[in-house]
Amino acid sequence: MSASERTHNFSAGPSALPLPVLQEAREEMLVYRDLGASIMEVSHRSRQYLDIEAGARRSMRELLGIGDDWHILFLQGGASLQFYQVALNFLGAEKKAGYLVTGQWAENAFVEAARVGQAYQVASSKASSFDRIPDPETWQWQPDSAWLHYTSNNTIYGTQFHSEPMVNAPLVCDASSDFLSRPIDMARYGLIYAGAQKNLGPAGVTIVLIHRDFLATRSPGLPTMLDYGTHAKDLFNTPPVFAIYLVEKVLRHLLASGGVNSALQRNTGKAQSLYAEIDRTGFWRGTAQTGSRSAMNVCYRIHNPALEDAFIREAEANGLTGLKGYRTVGGMRASLYNAVTQESVDALVGFMRDFEARFG
Amino acid sequence: MSASERTHNFSAGPSALPLPVLQEAREEMLVYRDLGASIMEVSHRSRQYLDIEAGARRSMRELLGIGDDWHILFLQGGASLQFYQVALNFLGAEKKAGYLVTGQWAENAFVEAARVGQAYQVASSKASSFDRIPDPETWQWQPDSAWLHYTSNNTIYGTQFHSEPMVNAPLVCDASSDFLSRPIDMARYGLIYAGAQKNLGPAGVTIVLIHRDFLATRSPGLPTMLDYGTHAKDLFNTPPVFAIYLVEKVLRHLLASGGVNSALQRNTGKAQSLYAEIDRTGFWRGTAQTGSRSAMNVCYRIHNPALEDAFIREAEANGLTGLKGYRTVGGMRASLYNAVTQESVDALVGFMRDFEARFG
Repeated sequence: MSASERTHNFSAGPSALPLPVLQEAREEMLVYRDLGASIMEVSHRSRQYLDIEAGARRSMRELLGIGDDWHILFLQGGASLQFYQVALNFLGAEKKAGYLVTGQWAENAFVEAARVGQAYQVASSKASSFDRIPDPETWQWQPDSAWLHYTSNNTIYGTQFHSEPMVNAPLVCDASSDFLSRPIDMARYGLIYAGAQKNLGPAGVTIVLIHRDFLATRSPGLPTMLDYGTHAKDLFNTPPVFAIYLVEKVLRHLLASGGVNSALQRNTGKAQSLYAEIDRTGFWRGTAQTGSRSAMNVCYRIHNPALEDAFIREAEANGLTGLKGYRTVGGMRASLYNAVTQESVDALVGFMRDFEARFG
Repeated sequence: MSASERTHNFSAGPSALPLPVLQEAREEMLVYRDLGASIMEVSHRSRQYLDIEAGARRSMRELLGIGDDWHILFLQGGASLQFYQVALNFLGAEKKAGYLVTGQWAENAFVEAARVGQAYQVASSKASSFDRIPDPETWQWQPDSAWLHYTSNNTIYGTQFHSEPMVNAPLVCDASSDFLSRPIDMARYGLIYAGAQKNLGPAGVTIVLIHRDFLATRSPGLPTMLDYGTHAKDLFNTPPVFAIYLVEKVLRHLLASGGVNSALQRNTGKAQSLYAEIDRTGFWRGTAQTGSRSAMNVCYRIHNPALEDAFIREAEANGLTGLKGYRTVGGMRASLYNAVTQESVDALVGFMRDFEARFG
């Protein structure tokens, strides 16, 4: 089937991929370059595959402006496995770590860490249904903590940190849903992890960046596969080849589109268009506190919630898909990751105006 | 590029996929059926993706003749993570487990288990460079063991168990390199795991089958993502969508080709052709003991090893790829997984005759 049958895709993750990336992958599906086979059908120690991995790392370094003091790992198991793995590696008996609990995934990360060692909540917005990033004035940060864990963007609730938390320790960040959507102040971090299926590629690979100084602080005697050191040293076992192959293409595409500064500009523009429409009349309402609004996931309701099902259904019939809010939350959620175009957002805004004109 | 540019692919893993599977995936790369997007670009809780997962499980049950008393999980991290996860779940303080050490991966599995609890070696063929499956007469099996772990096929050394080990406990099996290449006596097993990248699909998903009675014997209080119970209960987190999507196609293709009995017949025929050629004159020699030979990985040398580099290079130039032996072993290895055709084996045998005629 052809590109013309593709919808405006606002899925929260897995989510839209850049069309040129998919087209390249289609072209190479039976035979990759001079390989005589698809990239999925040969050794992960072949020159061709190793070139792809090296290329992905090179693009990542260029996008983030980082050097060899950062390890770039391609792991499996998603952010959910990282919740445990981070704590297992970096929460030894003598250490404690603070957690900012700003959503369900942030809470899951805290729960898995508390299983391993001394983790405590620095702040939580659970009491207000995670509708905001807690005001730093209210944080209970303990200055002798080894690190602070936070979730830079909260997919379910549509909230986002607008700058890095200020504490006297390295940051550990689940950046799954806004990684590479904007510049990052890397000097503040010890470790950043991100499931690929939002801004980076398909589900099935988790990108983990670890600074070598932070890596050196991990506990000894870890299970081989869960020890970040195993993967920082070498290609240990078979990686998720196809997922990394697509990530390499996405990163290259992002570089060619001007890198993270241009991405920020585009993403800000898309989010402003949609929030402006939500705020224009009283018909819609955003669910996140204004100061905590996410540029990646725009969560909103209709003041008359009885209309929401019809809106989502009609939007879908009009080629605007993936707009249903998270299953525990309801309402609408439009995810505006890197691969979502301004044209798609304009189409959504146009349809919202039409819907409001008929039902408002 | 077109199918005509594809080589005869003998890669050990990741390895050849059935051509019709790749052709279907290519066709659906930009738009999957009525989805308006690729299957990689939508929620893993969408009807379309859930149908794929359900279809993969249905095909697997049909292929193995198993019912709902078996959980079928699609996990990440490869067999290497299973080495640890199996022991973490099933090697509680009161238990011990025996390990048959028949190769490097089998040994890695033992090492990770010994880290967790009481694991012991039932037998090892390490002293003879893993050239055989140890004679059951020599096994040091302890009858109060909770389970026996074994590796049904040893990819690096080209050895294979020709029947299930006979012990008075459930079997736990790393079947990564021969799963679904032949029928399995499922009643003997508690758990079977297999990285997909040999017979099942691309790298990036690990199939784990667990019998519900065996699952019930696991330890309490496990980390959420490493607890098999988490994944047996529900779709917990984002799965590796594209890898599972291809596995579903491979399983359907296998069913349409007559299931595992037909696969056994084809695989036996392919292996016999190649071993017959190796044994025909004194020019080549198989490295595995005759009684332990694998139908999946045929490892062999040239009596004059100085010719091996030329053989591999010329074979490649003639469209016969992936024949280089494992990096720590050398020589040649032809992997004959389900997707490798008799035609490819015939082409290899023909080239071997030609090479021998010139250099023998």
